[in-house]
Amino acid sequence: MTKLADIGVYGLATMGANLARNAAGKGFTVAVANRNHERTDELIAEHGHEGAFVPAHGIADFVAAIATPRPILIMVKAGAPVDAVIEELLPHLDQGDIIIDGGNSLFTDTARRNAYLKGKGFRFVGMGVSGGEEGALIGPSMMPGGEVEAYERVAPMFTRMAAQVDGEPCCTHIGPDGAGHYVKMVHNGIEYADMQLIAEAYDLLKTLHGLDAPAIGEIFAEWNKGELDSYLIEITAEVLKKTDASTGKPLVDVITDEAEQKGTGLWTSKSALDLGVPLTAITEAVFARVLSSRRGQRIEAEGLLVHAKPPATLASDEAIEAIRAGLYASKIVAYAQGFQQLQVASDEYGWNLKLGDLATIWRGGCIIRARFLNRIREAYGDGAPVSSLLFEPYFREAVLAAEPKWRKVVGEAIAAGVPTPAFSSALAYYDGLRRARGPANLLQGLRDYFGAHTYGRLDKPGKYHTRWAQDGSEVKA
Amino acid sequence: MTKLADIGVYGLATMGANLARNAAGKGFTVAVANRNHERTDELIAEHGHEGAFVPAHGIADFVAAIATPRPILIMVKAGAPVDAVIEELLPHLDQGDIIIDGGNSLFTDTARRNAYLKGKGFRFVGMGVSGGEEGALIGPSMMPGGEVEAYERVAPMFTRMAAQVDGEPCCTHIGPDGAGHYVKMVHNGIEYADMQLIAEAYDLLKTLHGLDAPAIGEIFAEWNKGELDSYLIEITAEVLKKTDASTGKPLVDVITDEAEQKGTGLWTSKSALDLGVPLTAITEAVFARVLSSRRGQRIEAEGLLVHAKPPATLASDEAIEAIRAGLYASKIVAYAQGFQQLQVASDEYGWNLKLGDLATIWRGGCIIRARFLNRIREAYGDGAPVSSLLFEPYFREAVLAAEPKWRKVVGEAIAAGVPTPAFSSALAYYDGLRRARGPANLLQGLRDYFGAHTYGRLDKPGKYHTRWAQDGSEVKA
Repeated sequence: MTKLADIGVYGLATMGANLARNAAGKGFTVAVANRNHERTDELIAEHGHEGAFVPAHGIADFVAAIATPRPILIMVKAGAPVDAVIEELLPHLDQGDIIIDGGNSLFTDTARRNAYLKGKGFRFVGMGVSGGEEGALIGPSMMPGGEVEAYERVAPMFTRMAAQVDGEPCCTHIGPDGAGHYVKMVHNGIEYADMQLIAEAYDLLKTLHGLDAPAIGEIFAEWNKGELDSYLIEITAEVLKKTDASTGKPLVDVITDEAEQKGTGLWTSKSALDLGVPLTAITEAVFARVLSSRRGQRIEAEGLLVHAKPPATLASDEAIEAIRAGLYASKIVAYAQGFQQLQVASDEYGWNLKLGDLATIWRGGCIIRARFLNRIREAYGDGAPVSSLLFEPYFREAVLAAEPKWRKVVGEAIAAGVPTPAFSSALAYYDGLRRARGPANLLQGLRDYFGAHTYGRLDKPGKYHTRWAQDGSEVKA
Repeated sequence: MTKLADIGVYGLATMGANLARNAAGKGFTVAVANRNHERTDELIAEHGHEGAFVPAHGIADFVAAIATPRPILIMVKAGAPVDAVIEELLPHLDQGDIIIDGGNSLFTDTARRNAYLKGKGFRFVGMGVSGGEEGALIGPSMMPGGEVEAYERVAPMFTRMAAQVDGEPCCTHIGPDGAGHYVKMVHNGIEYADMQLIAEAYDLLKTLHGLDAPAIGEIFAEWNKGELDSYLIEITAEVLKKTDASTGKPLVDVITDEAEQKGTGLWTSKSALDLGVPLTAITEAVFARVLSSRRGQRIEAEGLLVHAKPPATLASDEAIEAIRAGLYASKIVAYAQGFQQLQVASDEYGWNLKLGDLATIWRGGCIIRARFLNRIREAYGDGAPVSSLLFEPYFREAVLAAEPKWRKVVGEAIAAGVPTPAFSSALAYYDGLRRARGPANLLQGLRDYFGAHTYGRLDKPGKYHTRWAQDGSEVKA
């Protein structure tokens, strides 16, 4: 009789297969199953030698192969497929078994499933996993949410499967209910902003300064040695330097400029709107992808809204440094906004998120891993409330130092007609944030005029209404 | 025995009371009721002489007072109160009676209520009403959605209650289900953008050029004589010129700069995210309100992220004209985005919206009424599909003419540190739209690198993946 498996993995597409191989490679016995049995057989044929796999074709066999209380990791497409697999599993489970959803589920679905399964005597962990296919295999960043007791059953495995940075695993219990998937969602939103900022920097180097892709790749490789040091900057250099075999051109020059998306970015923006968090950089990144995908409309527009392109200017060291500084400052704003959203969500939903821990587990394995995250970890390190990352000494100094260059490069982009929606919305947020007095007093005056919505006064408490259409006098509301 | 009422109005807060008075003033007999009976009695005491009201204290009396098939207009707070009133009414209604929800309900709630009531043999109209308290009284813009047959029962009344422009009522059947409330929602979203653009123009005149509120009010009054001619520009002039009686200062200078919101703006942005429409200007307007509401954080930021304010520059005719042009061009972008959202929603939900009709009924009564809407009406007038309002001759010429000044004023704002999130996001969208080739090719390269998400190629159809971590070769997906 075979040893019972330490964990089961259901769903063997790229992410599921690689997580199963990751666990097996680290010495765990892994039961594997997939709706389409051929995929299971393929995995065993190709990778069965890497560790102790227990392939199963039927759900009953799959469940029976796992040691109780059973941890079962579901890796299927978010949405209805997750519910379908849960329903298939339920008749075969014992009380106390733990279902772990490792896909990109919407956090409200996770909270619903958590309550549902708890009511039936089962346990549930909604876990965000970042790292792409390579991360899943060699060590991702893992963001499990749900009851601590359920997490503790799987912690010994997950903390070994996760990436390790400075001896610490990139996996920690995030919080109850949907907290794990919420945090992964915001992680992805930040990733959208990071990528859009990189795309804008690339566009500026290309369009303002006439550099070709390999030259821009060299610049990113150089940037990766400094404070921008991160996985995304590193692979940007590699992508830009890649030659297309069939044309001999840089590969990026033959790729269509239509970005796709899978939903976590727009979910992040929708949650920010619900929570009242000004999440401008990530949201502009989402909309920039949407605009890019309307390529036919853009082609039509180029012919109608004609623009005389200014000649490229010299890519001086100073010009390149201004773009780098603008990218860095905008990135700080995007992270400050994203972390503020996490704090507001934590307060709203009672999750007690430890934001320093999130920075810690994002340092390795995941797509936004970066040296920079150590600084965020430090900012939250002493447990004192952080109103904005922009107020913390390291980031404050960084952004103040970058500011003149940032401002200059956005001005040049605007003059030349190169769109920098994320650079410029980050700057507009920054300029709006650090003003004790903005122009919203006029908005409140207008709202009171047409809708009697009342306004506050600087010189006394309470709400007031001016009887605009009557005698013009002011009344206390 | 009293004549049976032509219509019943339930809910007598400002909007409900004024719509009831509007109907009574135009010769209709109006049954009125309110949860708190004192409000009903007050209305009759103050305004009973204005027409034929039938006050009722109980739901049964209220319903019995209305001629069948009964049109009953509910004017209560959006959300659960609407459902509660519907449930209270149901036992007293006859088959074929028509419930009209005239509040700012979420369009998905309206679709749900429509199906629910239809299933019970009743009829439902979800109607957006814009115009504020004054519009409700003298003639609002009305956006009824639901079954045409139900609308036809109330059309003779509503078209008389609505504002009239050039002999046409500002009321027409919008479409089925939640179409009326959806259209009102986007109307409000556009209103957010309009107001934010006005606030930014005010801020530029004040902060860049040192003008005081009355002087800025004069400039808005002047702008109102030209292509910006609109209700919001008109009342901006009045609000800016208003003196506060208790301090002798301009009123806006004593109003706190914390904008509030009631939800329709953020709903518009959330729907745009769901539908994949790049709705940047309205969304930046929503986030600008949110940022303004965090006044404590802004005061903290001003002390930490110190900025040397540049000296005010002369408010030359040229400088003022550049701000006006920037406001106008940004406004065109905001409307182009909003109308694109309406088109996408219409296609997605099968509503067959007539966008020219919407421009027509927004010309009077509502908060965004403007001369400008005649141009939108013309753009949609021949029924041919409109890819973007920006491509239509009138708007294309307007925006091309404004563009150099728009670009200049945004550049000056950025250099001076005055935040113009809506001006600059509108410009970034414009610059992004009219480029056949943007930088999203790099995004797709990165997505393929870390997630095997594949990319398209300019030179051949299909999706491709580069085996980045293996041999670097390209495979067809």
